[in-house]
Amino acid sequence: MKQLLKDHITKTVSLTDEEFDYFFSHFKPQSFKKGQTIISVGDKVDCEYFVISGCVKAFYINDDIKMYILQFAMPTWWTSDYAALYNQTKATINIDCISDVELLCLSNADREKLCAEFHQIEHFFRWRTNKGYVASQKRLLSFMNNNVKTRYEELLALYPQLYNLVPKHLIAAYLGVSRETLSRLYNS
Amino acid sequence: MKQLLKDHITKTVSLTDEEFDYFFSHFKPQSFKKGQTIISVGDKVDCEYFVISGCVKAFYINDDIKMYILQFAMPTWWTSDYAALYNQTKATINIDCISDVELLCLSNADREKLCAEFHQIEHFFRWRTNKGYVASQKRLLSFMNNNVKTRYEELLALYPQLYNLVPKHLIAAYLGVSRETLSRLYNS
Repeated sequence: MKQLLKDHITKTVSLTDEEFDYFFSHFKPQSFKKGQTIISVGDKVDCEYFVISGCVKAFYINDDIKMYILQFAMPTWWTSDYAALYNQTKATINIDCISDVELLCLSNADREKLCAEFHQIEHFFRWRTNKGYVASQKRLLSFMNNNVKTRYEELLALYPQLYNLVPKHLIAAYLGVSRETLSRLYNS
Repeated sequence: MKQLLKDHITKTVSLTDEEFDYFFSHFKPQSFKKGQTIISVGDKVDCEYFVISGCVKAFYINDDIKMYILQFAMPTWWTSDYAALYNQTKATINIDCISDVELLCLSNADREKLCAEFHQIEHFFRWRTNKGYVASQKRLLSFMNNNVKTRYEELLALYPQLYNLVPKHLIAAYLGVSRETLSRLYNS
């Protein structure tokens, strides 16, 4: 798992082996079983997670018990309730495991400490969030403008492995449509 | 305009007067008249903009000539086509002026240079994007889940001045509804 994180970081910044080892020492490995919950609405959120193996979903369930999926996170993706993490408020979304999952957990305090100690690490996290921001804006525009078929094709382009990994009702919840609408699409 | 940027930056980081003057020297003041275009689909995007006065909109027009508004930017907000700016691709959205506008323009190259030269400036831009990311995720979730009335109330909470500044058909385009649907809401 150390190498996966190292490969991920060094796409953006250069760290010496000693610097990376120090960076890595702040991450705590965690394992979860399929179906287990990582974050629930109302939780205090102290950590963000780098996915080593498996797949998690970040989601919201409204008053009508309808589920909306904000994100699927697979290996080398980061996930948390960032609104709660950054603002130190209670979680407003849930994160749970679609499969057995291994994660590396980094606390809010440690990320800020590492960013203050190493300019290169601050640079890495700035660019990670820049990319997340752009992806989020793109999804919003797509949600406003595109039909379900286009959004479905965009989703499969973004997560090519998803079709085999994730039950179809969760893909429907990501697209904001019913399971039946999705069935008509991929049977057409 | 210098003071507005200084007040904005120093909410997040401390810079000496000399450091801030150097930072500020990389911004180019620009003025636009109401209705003028700042970025058009297909443009090369080299700059991001800090709004000093007035209001701009970032928007997309689909094949059916329907407009979707991604963002209104008012004083102390930043705007650009960040996908195009960060990935050095052509613009996929438009930005134009709802009123006469004064901006400070910062080039992509200068932002990266300043971030490399000053750790504190990299910290500022990381937190600026963190906040943008959280706001974008929140809007996405709201778009998926909330009815138009709730989204309208959220919009007025986010931009209290908007109701008086922006024509109602643009507010409707931000909410992704027709002008008539919006009229029914705020007349009810």
